[in-house]
Amino acid sequence: MSARPSLDQIRACSNLISDHVIRTPTVPYYGEDLTNLLGPKTRVSLKLELLQRTGSFKPRGAINVVLHLSEEEKSRGITALSAGNHAIATAYAARAFGLSVKVVMPITANPFRVARCQALGAEIIFADDMDGLFGAVEKLQQEEGRVMVHPFEGPHTFAGTGTVGLEFMEDAKDLEAVIVPIGGGGLISGISSAVKQINPNCKVYGVEPELARGMSDSLAAGKAIEKVAISSIADSLSAPFHTSGAFEIIRENVDEVVTISDSEMVSCMKLMFTDLKLAVEPAGASALAALLGPLRDRCAGKHVGVLVCGTNIDQTTYQKFTGSA
Amino acid sequence: MSARPSLDQIRACSNLISDHVIRTPTVPYYGEDLTNLLGPKTRVSLKLELLQRTGSFKPRGAINVVLHLSEEEKSRGITALSAGNHAIATAYAARAFGLSVKVVMPITANPFRVARCQALGAEIIFADDMDGLFGAVEKLQQEEGRVMVHPFEGPHTFAGTGTVGLEFMEDAKDLEAVIVPIGGGGLISGISSAVKQINPNCKVYGVEPELARGMSDSLAAGKAIEKVAISSIADSLSAPFHTSGAFEIIRENVDEVVTISDSEMVSCMKLMFTDLKLAVEPAGASALAALLGPLRDRCAGKHVGVLVCGTNIDQTTYQKFTGSA
Repeated sequence: MSARPSLDQIRACSNLISDHVIRTPTVPYYGEDLTNLLGPKTRVSLKLELLQRTGSFKPRGAINVVLHLSEEEKSRGITALSAGNHAIATAYAARAFGLSVKVVMPITANPFRVARCQALGAEIIFADDMDGLFGAVEKLQQEEGRVMVHPFEGPHTFAGTGTVGLEFMEDAKDLEAVIVPIGGGGLISGISSAVKQINPNCKVYGVEPELARGMSDSLAAGKAIEKVAISSIADSLSAPFHTSGAFEIIRENVDEVVTISDSEMVSCMKLMFTDLKLAVEPAGASALAALLGPLRDRCAGKHVGVLVCGTNIDQTTYQKFTGSA
Repeated sequence: MSARPSLDQIRACSNLISDHVIRTPTVPYYGEDLTNLLGPKTRVSLKLELLQRTGSFKPRGAINVVLHLSEEEKSRGITALSAGNHAIATAYAARAFGLSVKVVMPITANPFRVARCQALGAEIIFADDMDGLFGAVEKLQQEEGRVMVHPFEGPHTFAGTGTVGLEFMEDAKDLEAVIVPIGGGGLISGISSAVKQINPNCKVYGVEPELARGMSDSLAAGKAIEKVAISSIADSLSAPFHTSGAFEIIRENVDEVVTISDSEMVSCMKLMFTDLKLAVEPAGASALAALLGPLRDRCAGKHVGVLVCGTNIDQTTYQKFTGSA
């Protein structure tokens, strides 16, 4: 058995973090092109978690982690290692509680995301390779006593991401399948825990890029793999390693993990722009891409929940990916 | 007294059209840049009517109009005159009830919007100037007996747009001011009718482009003016004429109509992309632009409802306006 959070724990978390996150809307998604692609009987509900504070689901976990720190831990401050959404969320959580925060980011991090972190008051420490990144965050823990807010592992993180699933099931009452992107796996760990405890018959599908298929490989290997080859444009889904907590929950809860190509994500970015006027980063389009791709037949005729997990992308990068004139 | 719809009529309409439109979400809008611009005490709730079916609020009125046609009228089909959102909504309403529809559009209409209408099964008739447009739609009424679905006038249209106001007041309970874009004035006629009957103390502000200020000029003249000079990039807010029904409701209900420049709208389009990942057409950014511009001081410290009325814009046009590389 995995250490998945109970529904009571998720509900308690939902109350606890409610001053700092919003209940993001769930909307039915209709579109001529979508209907042509899926057939008329498949219904899609989108949870627009990209409208969450900081632009992604990440503060749900980060806020919950900070809320469980002791006063002494809080006084030492926090740290995080992330190229983007988790860095912004950690900076946000620190500011919400007046904590000192130093975020370690790769030197290649998108300047838009770096600026977001800085605007929230975080100090940024850059490193130029994986060893440098891990070294820097370890140093901050050891020398400054900072608590690392993990991007995708740990009970408070899972309870936080569980609130996404709780809201989704409450707001789109008769979901028969839910599709969730996988980066490190923290999001789907929480969501699948909520979904399966509310309705064990509701399918939960995970999606990861073909070019960052660490969870698929972990499931095949029977354990969380420690080094993932990543080359996808979906940087938010490109976790360089996996962890056993999330892995065990996913192995227990998730019906199937599928992979999609970068070009499938780009196609869905364009579709979401056309149909919804949402300019999402590749990760934000990945669940829809899976529905239109590998999960199309399995979801035919069902009411499918598609998670738009977040987006922090600047317009120039957006246009580079989608290639419009 | 104007002929504004009663709250009961708006509620009845809400039930009547509910199979064909969605209750669009209302979300709190937080953003670093926004807070810097407005100060920390002004709260903003956005109603994301751009997620409405067809991409704008327009089907609420169009569906309600069609629902009130006699069987004999339905058999003759419908028509509409519009460069965009109303054309798409009318095509959608026709398809929903299996009616024949011919839409008259200017030859300069955005090809994306034309394609949207065609995808919904509408026959498009192009005309190349104002006389040609009115002539074409008149001919369709006289020779083919088609009912014209008016873009912004008439009791069923006002009841339809009133449902936007009803939802907004229900979902963001303590609104102290609501800001609504004005094109022809049909949207604000309905919304202000709902708002003022629910809470007479809630301010209702209208916004129009400086370069399409027909309602401001109508209010100054004391009557709906018949010819408006239009040169704004906000084509959806560029009604070439006004009508007495909407004018009288606005004169009775709306606290003030302000104008904004095209560049203020463009700035807000960029802000909404950065903060919300919403790619809106100029009209969709206009209410926020008014809050950050002429209404900033009047709304300071209040809970303000900002309507994102809709958007149908292709990516190329979006980039042309926002000027990103």
